[in-house]
Amino acid sequence: MKVGGQHRRCIWLEDDGKTVGIIDQTLLPHRFATVRLETLQDAARAIVTMQVRGAPLIGATAAYGVCLALKADASDESLERAYATLIATRPTAVNLKWALDEMMAAVRNRPRDERVAAAYRRAADICEQDIAINRAIGRHGLALIEKIAATKKPGEHVNVLTHCNAGWLAAVDVGTALSPVYTAHDAGIPLHVWVDETRPRNQGASLTAWELGQHGVPHTVIPDNTGGHLMQHGEVDIAIVGADRVAANGDVANKIGTYLKALAAKDNDVPFYVALPSPTIDFTVTDGVAEIPIEQRSADEVATIAGRAADGRIATVRIVPDGSAVANYGFDVTPARLVTGLITERGVIGASREALAKAFPERANAAK
Amino acid sequence: MKVGGQHRRCIWLEDDGKTVGIIDQTLLPHRFATVRLETLQDAARAIVTMQVRGAPLIGATAAYGVCLALKADASDESLERAYATLIATRPTAVNLKWALDEMMAAVRNRPRDERVAAAYRRAADICEQDIAINRAIGRHGLALIEKIAATKKPGEHVNVLTHCNAGWLAAVDVGTALSPVYTAHDAGIPLHVWVDETRPRNQGASLTAWELGQHGVPHTVIPDNTGGHLMQHGEVDIAIVGADRVAANGDVANKIGTYLKALAAKDNDVPFYVALPSPTIDFTVTDGVAEIPIEQRSADEVATIAGRAADGRIATVRIVPDGSAVANYGFDVTPARLVTGLITERGVIGASREALAKAFPERANAAK
Repeated sequence: MKVGGQHRRCIWLEDDGKTVGIIDQTLLPHRFATVRLETLQDAARAIVTMQVRGAPLIGATAAYGVCLALKADASDESLERAYATLIATRPTAVNLKWALDEMMAAVRNRPRDERVAAAYRRAADICEQDIAINRAIGRHGLALIEKIAATKKPGEHVNVLTHCNAGWLAAVDVGTALSPVYTAHDAGIPLHVWVDETRPRNQGASLTAWELGQHGVPHTVIPDNTGGHLMQHGEVDIAIVGADRVAANGDVANKIGTYLKALAAKDNDVPFYVALPSPTIDFTVTDGVAEIPIEQRSADEVATIAGRAADGRIATVRIVPDGSAVANYGFDVTPARLVTGLITERGVIGASREALAKAFPERANAAK
Repeated sequence: MKVGGQHRRCIWLEDDGKTVGIIDQTLLPHRFATVRLETLQDAARAIVTMQVRGAPLIGATAAYGVCLALKADASDESLERAYATLIATRPTAVNLKWALDEMMAAVRNRPRDERVAAAYRRAADICEQDIAINRAIGRHGLALIEKIAATKKPGEHVNVLTHCNAGWLAAVDVGTALSPVYTAHDAGIPLHVWVDETRPRNQGASLTAWELGQHGVPHTVIPDNTGGHLMQHGEVDIAIVGADRVAANGDVANKIGTYLKALAAKDNDVPFYVALPSPTIDFTVTDGVAEIPIEQRSADEVATIAGRAADGRIATVRIVPDGSAVANYGFDVTPARLVTGLITERGVIGASREALAKAFPERANAAK
């Protein structure tokens, strides 16, 4: 996708062919800056501090983290340390484990002098695969948007609501939930996106609004409290969100607050879709609501907020009284019964055990 | 209620018996400061800038606004100007109209030289009536909380969730939705309150957390996105919110986002109560969802946020990219079917046309 008219990905190899470049997403939307990752610790820190976030991009960064570890030390011990360090960065993201397992499989049984090259090849493949998956999600989601657009009068646009950021900033490129939006926009379908600001980290207001703006897609930022009212009054045609993990039964773990929007969609007959690359599916979890562990994050993410001060600098202010306790659950789980469909690289499928097993039999069987 | 151990109301007469004192709620929770209102314009400005907010407190401030106008000029023209100025300050708050109509009735047919004294008497009555109503709401709500407490094991507490601020800062004193909480806490029932931060103006994080903290009630601030997850996992025993307007059919207009919490409560069998003083009921509105106009407020409330900077000063930072549109709906309407009951000064009643008409026949008949 584009930044200031220039094509960009979210993760890339620098000119030396070894160092990894990323966008520091903690500075967006106020400042665009890139960071060079040179070591395993750099990669782990980028994930923990959320310079990179979003399930696919976390996976890609972890993959390159293994490359950076092996570049310094190609031993089994180094490989195991890299795996242990990276898997601990974000407990909810299933792509992280998927990408690390892929990397292990690609290098484990090779002689040490082949490991580095094999690792970089596999990491690059993971990135290309992510882009190919996301383009396929875009094509399948486009069909849903085209169907809505066909019901509109001239001059009317399709209203999409999204939560958090599942755009190209959450992936290597293109995005998941926003891939149908970009595909439809590029195909000339008039659309407008309601962007949930997505407290407490405001990935909607900071990242989704910024990337939609860079690509020229009309959009409006709204507080997370607003979506129910809009759906009640016919202002949302379709909701599309991403996923951090989808259970074998179709339950969807995604950014905290997703469940509330799914409830509002159900109550108002608004179709509620979840777009996801298949590595996000965790066939080992049979019941998402009961089993998926929910990450609790730092109280500071709720008690303070960063933004651009009057003098242009990024400043952090406290918004909760001293002495008040704060809780910060990172995700919630939306029961499959509230999900109209899953937009995957293999098409739009039902959010059910049967549909998932039918669409991804090799993954479902491997988990048995 | 108490501030720093001292008893306080939210609005009072200063020592001169004419000037009106209020707490500047825009500075909370970081600074406690009071403001003197000397003219009609001061009172109108206090409402518009939300130095005072909350339906009952808006009504009381408007009542004293009429007093201040008549003190300067007791003519019919002055009275009409005061009414027109004050009614325009907040379109959704039905107590505002109720209080202004009460003031008009109290002074209109009196000779000019009696109007000022009559106005101050009626304004003081409105304040005392608000407190009496809120104490009654507390008693009726206490019974609900006691019933839940009876099911708890020793050491467990009752978990209440609330949205926005319907505490004593929203009233003359005591509060509406928080009146049962304070009553139960003072009665020795162990309880804990989940406080929705309530974007975009953060009245939960700023005001509810502050006033609960001042009174010693255990509480935890959460992003608005969190309540669904907590209810799904049994962490909420009862939700109690306030109301800006209740329609004759039991539909509830309250702070944006209330509807989403009501949906989550329904989905998880959590009782969802609305506490309201009866002046909040608008028997002229027969269908709340269809008819209640929703105030759209300034984009700045969403695009910027104020808090305490590292140097202790209150600073405002921008959190939305330049060029992104913003929408700011102040309220939503929760359909009566999602409301377990209405806690009024006349007891806990069903959220239905029949129950409201039966509990408040004189109001229902007057609206026919």
